[in-house]
Amino acid sequence: MKTDDGGREAETEPFSSFDDLRGMLAALPEADAAAVARAVARDASLTKPAGSLGRLEAVAFWLAGWKGICADRVQIVIFAGNHGVVAQGVSAFPAGVTVQMVGNFRAGGAAVNQLAKMVGAQVVVEALELERPTCDFTAGPAMTEAEVVAAMLVGWRAVDPLADLLVPGEMGIGNTTAAAAMACALFGGVAGDWVGRGTGVDDAGLGRKAAVVTAGLALHAGRAPFEVLRCLGGREIAAMAGAILRARTLRLPVVLDGFIACAAAAVLARAAPGALAHCIAGHASAEAGHAALLAALDMEPLLALGLRLGEGSGAALAVAIVQAAAACHLGMATFGEAGVSQG
Amino acid sequence: MKTDDGGREAETEPFSSFDDLRGMLAALPEADAAAVARAVARDASLTKPAGSLGRLEAVAFWLAGWKGICADRVQIVIFAGNHGVVAQGVSAFPAGVTVQMVGNFRAGGAAVNQLAKMVGAQVVVEALELERPTCDFTAGPAMTEAEVVAAMLVGWRAVDPLADLLVPGEMGIGNTTAAAAMACALFGGVAGDWVGRGTGVDDAGLGRKAAVVTAGLALHAGRAPFEVLRCLGGREIAAMAGAILRARTLRLPVVLDGFIACAAAAVLARAAPGALAHCIAGHASAEAGHAALLAALDMEPLLALGLRLGEGSGAALAVAIVQAAAACHLGMATFGEAGVSQG
Repeated sequence: MKTDDGGREAETEPFSSFDDLRGMLAALPEADAAAVARAVARDASLTKPAGSLGRLEAVAFWLAGWKGICADRVQIVIFAGNHGVVAQGVSAFPAGVTVQMVGNFRAGGAAVNQLAKMVGAQVVVEALELERPTCDFTAGPAMTEAEVVAAMLVGWRAVDPLADLLVPGEMGIGNTTAAAAMACALFGGVAGDWVGRGTGVDDAGLGRKAAVVTAGLALHAGRAPFEVLRCLGGREIAAMAGAILRARTLRLPVVLDGFIACAAAAVLARAAPGALAHCIAGHASAEAGHAALLAALDMEPLLALGLRLGEGSGAALAVAIVQAAAACHLGMATFGEAGVSQG
Repeated sequence: MKTDDGGREAETEPFSSFDDLRGMLAALPEADAAAVARAVARDASLTKPAGSLGRLEAVAFWLAGWKGICADRVQIVIFAGNHGVVAQGVSAFPAGVTVQMVGNFRAGGAAVNQLAKMVGAQVVVEALELERPTCDFTAGPAMTEAEVVAAMLVGWRAVDPLADLLVPGEMGIGNTTAAAAMACALFGGVAGDWVGRGTGVDDAGLGRKAAVVTAGLALHAGRAPFEVLRCLGGREIAAMAGAILRARTLRLPVVLDGFIACAAAAVLARAAPGALAHCIAGHASAEAGHAALLAALDMEPLLALGLRLGEGSGAALAVAIVQAAAACHLGMATFGEAGVSQG
């Protein structure tokens, strides 16, 4: 139904404020316990000693509870944003690299493109107003509520409802600083607990990052989760949060990438415990704060290979593990089918 | 050229004794340092912060030193053997499961078949005289030197010289007991340091395994590496050692699987330091002794997902990581190609 002014009707937007988002988080669909129980029963009949596929069994059960045990159609969405805080000298790369890398993603030249090809994933790139960085959070809030909502809607709409598995990725020079500030605001501690070398700053750069995070926290103390996102986050981080939330409403399982993706997810987790039940941690990044962030989220990563690239790259690699879990569960013969004696 | 008696000429066999094998191990081809240097130089030009692909970079450099950075043609060879020591009640499954699982591998119903499909690997199954188990090593040597050599030749010949990557896998009810005895004989300690639950023995079974290993070690103390393999090993373990050695002569990189595959590899490592330079540890098994064995071999596994199935399954899963390393190295754009500013 169209309105007279040709615009979208207000009710076609899934949310238009933080209040709407909090309401949505209070009514999330849960995992299908009966489907999980069926998967556990089938697993016990497969030609292997009980428990011998380790984490792959748990991953198959997790998939079973959401869309079902299938990981064929994989969508990787890379959200890109720019950060006012880069003016403080917190990155080893200039801000112009964000838009350059968007071009590289679209041309298929980045690491994530190669990993996507390997797991048969579609890559979608969403550049969020790169010419308009967020405000420097040491001077004021990074965004307005309307800007956060708009960015979250970009994430929400980018999700393919037909996907079996979603990987939200990001690119944004300066965004490990934003993520560190958010993690500190959401989980406590001091800046030094959460800042790391990002793309590779030296000791002086690391010191600047800690000082910038400390200043941001002093200016934006005691905020609720969505306010933390607004004051300290970035558009690509908000978009990831929107995509992760959309996935939950679609019962679409999500593989989380590194520090920045987990900071986005953490906003939802802090706003509503259990909001990340449809998410699995793809890998442990080498970025200093990621281990603490995973621990705070009570998540055990699938991989720990020292990656610290973002782009969704670590999660894309972990998709191979999720696909392996699905393949074993679906493809293996049972003891009865194979004529193998049970122990 | 045929001989008069219709048999194979002696010189067509690559080895016919432990002495021959020791001679071969003294003259192994080394990694190509110039190829590694070229890979390191290319890596520095790729559109990512230096070092940000973590372990994937090291894996690409490792591949570069052997056949080159390619992991398309993957061969998984599953060697199966039976063990006299199962008479001592060391396994949760009956010995008949070995031949039943060989049927399952050939029919494509096992876990490793699903994982092989995922990484595009060919699966070859080599059953080694399943109707003739090794001798119970608590009563005497498991095999004669001729039997070990014959089994190693099966492994040697099974390797596809055109493969880019080899995964030696195994199946053999009772073989975690043989592997534990070998690890203890090769690296010291006591039986309890090396025995684990295998396919899932209870506490009483675990106690029997430790006692059996202790008895075997008492009977076959102070042996050189190939003698350890002969006295305590099994045909599938010898065949894996033969395949790993053949791979080295072909400069073919190898992904090692779990506890038993590593026990086979350890024979070569103890006989000649550096003999496993062409090998990478695919995963850390949940089998109790595997972590200690990897540490003794000075190997860092790619994955740690709690698998304990054998069959080459953990290594097959790790092949995805090796393929990812190759794909990133070969497929990524350089800073120059992509027009991305370097930090």
